[in-house]
Order: sequence, then structure tokens, then C-alpha cells
Amino acid sequence: MTQLLQAKKGIVTPEMREVCATEKIREEDLIERISRGEVVIPKNVLRSRVAVKGIGKGLRTKVNTNIGTSPDLVDLDLEMAKLKVAEKAGTDTIMDLSTGGDLNKIRRTILASTNLPLGTVPIYQAAVETIAERGSITRMDPEKIFEVIHRQAEDGVDFMTVHCGLTQSSLERLRKEGRVGDIVSRGGAFLTCWMIANEKENPLYTQFDRLLEIARKYDVTLSLGDGLRPGCIADSTDRAQIQELIILGELAKYALEYGVQVMIEGPGHIPLKEIEANILLEKKLCHNAPFYVLGPVVTDIAPGYDHITSAIGGAVAASAGADFLCYVTPAEHLRLPSLEDVKEGVIAARIAAHVGDISKGVKEALEWDLKMSKNRRRRNWKKQIELSINPEKACKLREKSKPEADDVCTMCGEYCAIKLIDKALHGEKPLTLA
Amino acid sequence: MTQLLQAKKGIVTPEMREVCATEKIREEDLIERISRGEVVIPKNVLRSRVAVKGIGKGLRTKVNTNIGTSPDLVDLDLEMAKLKVAEKAGTDTIMDLSTGGDLNKIRRTILASTNLPLGTVPIYQAAVETIAERGSITRMDPEKIFEVIHRQAEDGVDFMTVHCGLTQSSLERLRKEGRVGDIVSRGGAFLTCWMIANEKENPLYTQFDRLLEIARKYDVTLSLGDGLRPGCIADSTDRAQIQELIILGELAKYALEYGVQVMIEGPGHIPLKEIEANILLEKKLCHNAPFYVLGPVVTDIAPGYDHITSAIGGAVAASAGADFLCYVTPAEHLRLPSLEDVKEGVIAARIAAHVGDISKGVKEALEWDLKMSKNRRRRNWKKQIELSINPEKACKLREKSKPEADDVCTMCGEYCAIKLIDKALHGEKPLTLA
Repeated sequence: MTQLLQAKKGIVTPEMREVCATEKIREEDLIERISRGEVVIPKNVLRSRVAVKGIGKGLRTKVNTNIGTSPDLVDLDLEMAKLKVAEKAGTDTIMDLSTGGDLNKIRRTILASTNLPLGTVPIYQAAVETIAERGSITRMDPEKIFEVIHRQAEDGVDFMTVHCGLTQSSLERLRKEGRVGDIVSRGGAFLTCWMIANEKENPLYTQFDRLLEIARKYDVTLSLGDGLRPGCIADSTDRAQIQELIILGELAKYALEYGVQVMIEGPGHIPLKEIEANILLEKKLCHNAPFYVLGPVVTDIAPGYDHITSAIGGAVAASAGADFLCYVTPAEHLRLPSLEDVKEGVIAARIAAHVGDISKGVKEALEWDLKMSKNRRRRNWKKQIELSINPEKACKLREKSKPEADDVCTMCGEYCAIKLIDKALHGEKPLTLA
Repeated sequence: MTQLLQAKKGIVTPEMREVCATEKIREEDLIERISRGEVVIPKNVLRSRVAVKGIGKGLRTKVNTNIGTSPDLVDLDLEMAKLKVAEKAGTDTIMDLSTGGDLNKIRRTILASTNLPLGTVPIYQAAVETIAERGSITRMDPEKIFEVIHRQAEDGVDFMTVHCGLTQSSLERLRKEGRVGDIVSRGGAFLTCWMIANEKENPLYTQFDRLLEIARKYDVTLSLGDGLRPGCIADSTDRAQIQELIILGELAKYALEYGVQVMIEGPGHIPLKEIEANILLEKKLCHNAPFYVLGPVVTDIAPGYDHITSAIGGAVAASAGADFLCYVTPAEHLRLPSLEDVKEGVIAARIAAHVGDISKGVKEALEWDLKMSKNRRRRNWKKQIELSINPEKACKLREKSKPEADDVCTMCGEYCAIKLIDKALHGEKPLTLA
């Protein structure tokens, strides 16, 4: 039975108990949110020892890290090293987006090496195998998609991106809209190629029941993907994007009745001023299903710095109610990320999530800031470093530039405002040169 | 005559003409905004060849870079190298915040080496000289402050931070409020030490006329500083901060009548959800005087990443109407910034400013994104690199990971969504393995 079906029956599972303990919320609140589809706990029934992560209303904002090979870069050791870097940097979940090399082996190796919930995009493997076997994505047999989904579920994958809302009607709106960037989702592009060449409806939409059956059997959380997400600022919040979102909302409601856990994926490239409206739209159209956003990236002009453009968008999105942030690295739009890119991407996304949690009033987030501030006030550098989001980096920066006096830093030296004020406001002797 | 006095008389100065040309606005609009105190053009009458930068309503959001020595790190060559790095990274203005070494020499060297508007915080030099001459900041002669302001104005400084709103009444509110972080502004701390020890009112407040006289003579733009800005999330938007802002608004109005250009400085550490209200408050209480914010930093827990926490805050602030962003570097709260810190700080602030400009509807900002997106759609990598905010970094990232095919990147290789869609939507042959 899925977490959702058990919640509906009023059963508090060990996983729910763990979420309640970690997030400090009441069991009756969690069970209600899960049964309404407002919170998911991605965990395949076949996987044991998986870190339990609740995603959704009233919980800490979570962060996902994408790893995986591409046709141009197949290096399993490198991807495993990225996994470890991402775990150390504090990611909540991992997605394997591999499209190069032995995809089964890569996925199984990752699954065996991490306790974090693992997500995939099965259409990638279906497409890659089809191209290998039949020479073109357009010759894909819909059976292939469901066979791959089943194979991955049997391996223990905890959540899967499935672009079920990319229908002929969504595509028609995309065509008529006349976009600058058309489609930038890989999964969306694969499906579109197939749908146009075969003049057929998306099998993930027409056979949604079949998908639900597999998902329910293994308690795979479906992450309903946005194949038509805008790929540039100029295309944001257009008919194609919102049409797909409407359909995802309908499917989410259907899945909820079926007992399958569902998240909704969101953009993408969105100007800052439209982010709040995008979150509102998802929450309304999808009945508060957890919202999993990719960025959003708030400008197109900063390749090399898209961990920053998406930290801006992610912080605003999380503040407005987004539940789950997919990291974006400095390598986005330029290359497959390196180890350093992965680390910087995870930290930036965690900063964004934390900033959102301050807005959401997540208690432990507020306490963290307060603890840091008190130690900054006390000029306790050891504690400040310990409390930093990345103590290693904070320590390195400080170590490279040692102050004369241990209790200040080289920015102000003895003219440290906090030190001066200690004396003036709290009775210590005012600053002299001695 | 100051730019403001000339605007009031309907005179269009060469500087105004340049701002109109650069920002593509009409002369009558600019002259009206300057005469209302909504736009400033910081340029000391003694300086020639200064890049003209308009700051305020309807103009592109500007970025400032702080450089300068501290008692612990006096290296003029290093600071000059930072100046060059900041200029190359695209800063609009420079502030010399030096507190170590020969302050006159440092300032004069910087002034002679840059065409950008230069700002200072004269209370630093007044305090440092007082401590050297008399052993303690508490023994500062108010004459010293005005003498230094005059000296720096005569050197050609274009704008000066003066903490005129830090009065005994503001301080009293700070005491009663009971802050976690008290005062984190260096200038604010110097003045507070003096005011408490001498039980006297702030000379920059009591002798504001005298300050205005100097400023008017040289057309120094006054940047009314927030000595009581919150230094942590827990202290944000409190009585002390807002009391000081009210006083700054009153002084700004007075200065406007006097013919002196004025900006207002703002926080600091502010949670994301309070930023919009902070901008609104400044615009209302200070009658739309340009707002110059330091960050805002939206969480305390990320030393080493405060270019990111402040890019988040700066983007939201600029979107809400902030006019001028002071950069924050990864070194903030840890050390005097290195060359690399300066570069990353300027780029992050420029990203934030640009994101704000998209919200503000600044035409050239929107056009930049559109150009980038069109070239991304065309998979024109040369143009994408050229259009990047830091082409050097974008180029380096891409060069380090070469794709098999020139028209994609190693993220997706041949499965590039844009390439797939080209074929599917626009009639090219769909993807095969060949």
C-alpha cells in the first residue's frame, strides 16, 4: 500500500512518524496533508534504508541534485563522486538523468550507493534504447515506455518524472503561441518528436491508468513533468505552459483518487515578478499538490552563474510556497556539471530553500539564523564557522586572511563595529590604539 | 551650481544630456525627476572625465563596488588591482572605504586612476585620524568631521556616506528595542561611541546646514547612511531602523530645498518577505529619493556565499524599486575581499540589478535577454558566450568540456532538446544515430 492509501485509512506508517519527528509536526496534520495530496513521501516499497523525506505543505523546503551521464560524457566514477559531493553538501534527494553508457548499470549502482530518495526520467532510457535499437525516437513503441517504467520501479526508483500533460492540445497551443525557445525539456522534446511523427496522442496521457498501476504497486511518487516549460524569459507563463499545468492538475486529482502520490514540476525560465503568480497557479490548479521547481532561472544572460540566477528564483518561489527546488549549477546551459559545479549548485539551492523557509516560518530555519547572529554578536568565530552552510568554505576564506586580533576579521580589524559597540553600549572601555 | 539647482532652473546640463542618451529617456522627464530629488547624478564639480551615471527613478539599476584598506591589510597595489577588476566586471561606481595606511594618498591615487564616480565615508578618516592623534574616538572634535568632509570634497569625491539620522532619539529606540546584533555599521559605531561618551547629539545632524554648504559648493551627492541598519535577520525593520529612516527622509527634503543631491542608504540584513515593505517605506518616507541598499542579505547563515544571499535580496529589492545596489562579496563577514571576491561580488550584484531591471521594464534589459534566447534557440555558441554577463567565465566552462558536435553542449549532447525540436517542429529530419 502506498503512503497515500495508508494515510487515507488513518494508518500512521513508520515513514510518517519519521517525518513528524524530523519536521516537528503533529501526526494528525501530516496524515491529513498526505491524504489530501499536499505532502508526499517518495519511497519505493522495494527500497529499505532510504532516508525519509517529506515534501510539501508545512515542511522544510527540499533540494534535489541531478547527476548522470550524457552521450558525450560517460564516466560512472565521476557520477558516483558527484553523488558523494551532493550528499556532503546536504542535498535531500538525487535524480539520475543519465543518457549515456549502460543506463541500467548506472542506475543500479547509484541506488546501491545512496540512502537518499532517487528519482529518474524513464522516457530518457526509453528514447535512448529506441534510438539504439531502431535508429530513431519516432519509431518508439509505447510499450517500451511502460516496460522501462516498470523496470526502473522494480529497481527501487522512488520518484519518476513523467510528462503526462504534454498532449496534442498543449502542443497545438505551443505552435500557435509562437515561442522564442520552443521546447527545452529533453523528455518533452523526445515525446514531441514521437507525437508529431506518429500523429498520435502522448501514451503517458492516454494510458495514465497503466502508469498509475505501476506507481501504486511500488509506491513510486509521480513527478508530473512540464515538458513545455518556458526555456527563456520571453516565453514565460504562456498558454502552452499553463495549458499543460491545467492538464497536470486534472491528472494529479485522478492519481490522488487512485492512491498514487504526485508532485507537479514547474519552470524553468520565469522573470522574478511572475514567480509568485506561477506558484499560486500551481497551488490552485493542482489542489496544493507539492510543487517541484527547476530554478526558476530569472534571467537568460548569466550562463556560468545560473546557480545564482536560480537561487534568486528559488528563494522567491520557496517564499511563495514552492516545496521542492531542483538545483541548477554554474554549468547550466554550458556543459555537464563538474564536481565543483555540483557542490556550488547544491549550496546555492540550499540557501534558496532556507531563505524560503524563513518566509514560511519554519522554526528550525529561524533558529539557525538566530544562533548564527548571536555568535556573530559575541565574535565567536569558531561557532560562526560551525554554523555556516558550508563550514569548509567559510573556514578557508577566513584562514587565508588572518586578522591581528583573533576576535575580529580583516574587513574592519580593530574598527569592528560590533567590538566598538560592545564597549560603548555595554560599558566596556571605548576603543584606544593600545 | 549643482545638477539639482540647474534642473530646478530648467537647465539641461551636459551630464543630464548624457544620462538621457544612455538611458534613452526624454530630457523633460529627467529634469523633472532630478528637480524632485528622484534622480541624482553624482559628480563633483572639480572632477572632469567622470563617467556620468544617473541613479534613480526610471533608470537602469546601478551597482557599487567597495574597495579599500583596513588596519590589518594595507596594500595600495592590491586595492588598485581591485579597482581594475571591478571596472572590468562592470561596476557603475566605486567607494573607497579605506581605514588603514595613508588615507589621503590612497583616495587621491584611486581618484586619479578611475573615471567612475567615487564615494567615501568621511567619518572613517575622521575617526582614524582622531584615534591616531588623541588615542580614542571619544575625543573626536566635531570640527575634524567637517574638515575631513571638506578635504575629501576638495579632492573631488563625488558622493559621501554621512550618517546624519543617527540621533540620540534613534539610539534611545535602539536601546529600548533590545537588539540581537546592535550596530554593525562602522560609521554608525564610531558616531555612537562618541555620542554616548560625550552625551552630545550627532554633529552631522545638528550641523546639517554646514554639511549641505560643502556639498552644494562641490556638488557632492550626499548618501544619507543608515548607521542603525539591522545586522541580522532577527533585528530587521525595527523601531531603531525606521526611526532613523524617518529622520533621513526629513533631512532629504531639507537638502532638496537647499539644492543638494541626496540618496538614502538602506539595509542590510532583511528577510525576503520584508524587502518590498522596506522599499515602499523608503519611497514614502523619503519622497522617492534614490534608494541605495547594501544587499539586502536575506539570511545570516551563509558566510562564504553572501554574494548569493545579497543577489537574492538585491534582485527582490531592485524589482520593488531600489535604485542602487552595493555589492557584497563572498568574503563578507569573514575577511577583506580578495581580487576574486571582488569580481564575483560585482557580477552577482549586476545579475541582481539586471533581474530588477527586467521587473522595472528597462528596455535594454529585456532586449539583452531576448537576444541571448534567440541565439540559444539557434545554438549559436559564439554569440551566447559574447552575450553572457561574464563571457570569460562562460567560455572557460564550455571549453573545459567539449561536445562531440559543435552545435550542442555536453549536458545533453545529441539529445539536445532544442536540436530535437528544430527537426520535429520545423521540418528537419528527426534524430537518428547517424
